[in-house]
Amino acid sequence: MAPERAGGAVYLLTDYGLADEFAGVTRAVVLREAPGAPVVDLTHGIPPFAVRAGALTLARSVVHLGPGVVVAVVDPGVGGGRRGVALAVAADGGPRYLVGPDNGLLCWAAERLGGAAAAVALPPGPGPGHSFDGRDVFAPAAAALWSGRPLAALGHAVDPGSLVRLAPLWLAVTPPEPGRPGSLHAEVTWVDRFGNVQLAARQADGEEAALAGSVEIATATVSVEARTVDSFDALGDDETGLMVDANGHLALVCRRRSAATVLGVAAGETVQVRQRGGGRP
Amino acid sequence: MAPERAGGAVYLLTDYGLADEFAGVTRAVVLREAPGAPVVDLTHGIPPFAVRAGALTLARSVVHLGPGVVVAVVDPGVGGGRRGVALAVAADGGPRYLVGPDNGLLCWAAERLGGAAAAVALPPGPGPGHSFDGRDVFAPAAAALWSGRPLAALGHAVDPGSLVRLAPLWLAVTPPEPGRPGSLHAEVTWVDRFGNVQLAARQADGEEAALAGSVEIATATVSVEARTVDSFDALGDDETGLMVDANGHLALVCRRRSAATVLGVAAGETVQVRQRGGGRP
Amino acid sequence: MAPERAGGAVYLLTDYGLADEFAGVTRAVVLREAPGAPVVDLTHGIPPFAVRAGALTLARSVVHLGPGVVVAVVDPGVGGGRRGVALAVAADGGPRYLVGPDNGLLCWAAERLGGAAAAVALPPGPGPGHSFDGRDVFAPAAAALWSGRPLAALGHAVDPGSLVRLAPLWLAVTPPEPGRPGSLHAEVTWVDRFGNVQLAARQADGEEAALAGSVEIATATVSVEARTVDSFDALGDDETGLMVDANGHLALVCRRRSAATVLGVAAGETVQVRQRGGGRP
Repeated sequence: MAPERAGGAVYLLTDYGLADEFAGVTRAVVLREAPGAPVVDLTHGIPPFAVRAGALTLARSVVHLGPGVVVAVVDPGVGGGRRGVALAVAADGGPRYLVGPDNGLLCWAAERLGGAAAAVALPPGPGPGHSFDGRDVFAPAAAALWSGRPLAALGHAVDPGSLVRLAPLWLAVTPPEPGRPGSLHAEVTWVDRFGNVQLAARQADGEEAALAGSVEIATATVSVEARTVDSFDALGDDETGLMVDANGHLALVCRRRSAATVLGVAAGETVQVRQRGGGRP
Repeated sequence: MAPERAGGAVYLLTDYGLADEFAGVTRAVVLREAPGAPVVDLTHGIPPFAVRAGALTLARSVVHLGPGVVVAVVDPGVGGGRRGVALAVAADGGPRYLVGPDNGLLCWAAERLGGAAAAVALPPGPGPGHSFDGRDVFAPAAAALWSGRPLAALGHAVDPGSLVRLAPLWLAVTPPEPGRPGSLHAEVTWVDRFGNVQLAARQADGEEAALAGSVEIATATVSVEARTVDSFDALGDDETGLMVDANGHLALVCRRRSAATVLGVAAGETVQVRQRGGGRP
Repeated sequence: MAPERAGGAVYLLTDYGLADEFAGVTRAVVLREAPGAPVVDLTHGIPPFAVRAGALTLARSVVHLGPGVVVAVVDPGVGGGRRGVALAVAADGGPRYLVGPDNGLLCWAAERLGGAAAAVALPPGPGPGHSFDGRDVFAPAAAALWSGRPLAALGHAVDPGSLVRLAPLWLAVTPPEPGRPGSLHAEVTWVDRFGNVQLAARQADGEEAALAGSVEIATATVSVEARTVDSFDALGDDETGLMVDANGHLALVCRRRSAATVLGVAAGETVQVRQRGGGRP
């Protein structure tokens, strides 16, 4: 039987922002309940209520973490019917537990960590009110797991297969054929601070579509020529590039300015990328 | 005699923001002077110079903290005549010390922690300049207290009764009478990231005014019908709710959008809430 | 020979912002590679790509830090030709190592810490992609140094004299002469959250120009009268002041409002300050 003690760190990802005390009180409750626990903010900047953006950010992050417990809270349904859950994941080396609302927020992170091996539904918090489960339910559960309390002691077991899943990312890859160049049609998964536009497509998808050299990017509003590059600095000041990013995804990028602004796209929209010049170069 | 050693964590609340290095240097000075101290940001997002907002945020936060020392800095009078102070509070279990400017910022937090049992005025910092007492005065004082230095060694004793207090929160509760429904008139204490509008009134005030079911909310600019609910999800998309929030206050809320925008209110304004339908339901 | 073990804390300064997970994943990688390391955010709010602002912020910060390793990332050239470097500095007591891109970002901080005594060029990260060296190159290098790995083991030695330096700060000081009042012409190094305008000039420069009492401030767009003060509160509501700030620089300030707005200036612009009334008072 695997040891239940998590140790490591407690990682936080929320849509609480940093202007209010939500994130700070959540940090403090972890430390009050688990003195000595290193508390690491992944981010508190998920847009309010943006469960899908939070789930994507969490999935990108968890593969880089050491041991510990992840608390994620993007929770428009707090206080209503949705369950609060804690999961044990199958993979070794990284975080062993994920804690948060059962609204799909955790689904892709759990998948990246080998899938949920066990799950419990957490009882409601003590109140007053039931609008701050980060403080009242999730932080105490994470502190308990970090301290070595067994998962099964935190709530009643639920079937990991019953956990809410989000709709899959939109992606369609069309390999090249004689007379028809390869292309892909992909959801924008993320626009970062620098305006880089991450697509649901990964490096292998770009290879399947045989995208190389000069490509055409089509959004809802514009169509621009771009070219595949390995770094921002390989681009001229007016160019747009298609690059493998630090998550192994294809991303639309510019040099020292925002590709999202140039292309007029936001997360959740879709973009088409098509090889120019009639096929494999 | 109570032990003077604080231990626990050092908690920070300021209006420094996170764009400049103010918060970071303050954290680093705590750690330089008290190696091993866990440093927990409550928030650095208090609006610049907003002493009242800072005092409210601090009071909401301190009741959830474990042991340690709280540093709070919202300090428009820095370098001028106001005192810098450190207080020991009476309550056990939570933070033992509060450190910051004596401009009212600490008054409600001290009250929540059992009141100030002792206080000292801190000497001015070494400079250069006298515009960053978080770095030069308050962080070193907190580090010293965390490390076990006695409060009395940090400055000259001052009468806790002489500490600056802010004007009390505005709140008037009118219980129902025959022919006249109950109502309350309350200061807005906080608009959070999600647009929830917290009132100075607490759950018991709502009960005294017999607010239940359908109520009328009147601000300076609009009057809307609302109803009492237990969760955001109990509301329809176009409804406004009156809810007990996670601090035990009454709050005006909407479902997945900003009640503050709907109502056009900001912190510091007042709002009237009146029972509809002529009294106790 | 000096001991190579850094210990202390790992300090982070970047232009990553806090909305994405860049800063959080960087923190987590430090902790994954160096469990137990205190990780201190100096700031992640440097404007995107603003190497000069980052270098100034870092230089202001490092003199207040205890022992440890500083990671700084403002890195528009990531993935291109620029080197990643780690430096050992000469001064004792503060951080021993600086890690980041060799684009000038580290130059003034190294100088403040006694200069670079040794430097190595860091090998590229493992990928995928080469757009997140904070995660892939700099955080692991900092963790290794914190853990006691020798600098020379991290990459091949480079001449500290070959490290990129930024253009010096713009500053011209004119002492008073008979019939001509003293003045100075200085780059704006920083506009902080409160609107205080820090100049490249230091207290001694103001003394050399014999600025005291009433001065005239000229920007590209306005000319205003100001006076030298010791604190914000010494100013009336409509006044502008010239003050020695907490870094020992001269700063243009107002009382509870933004001097930058009053003067219409931003970092990187220049300002003239001239003694009024014909010379030394």
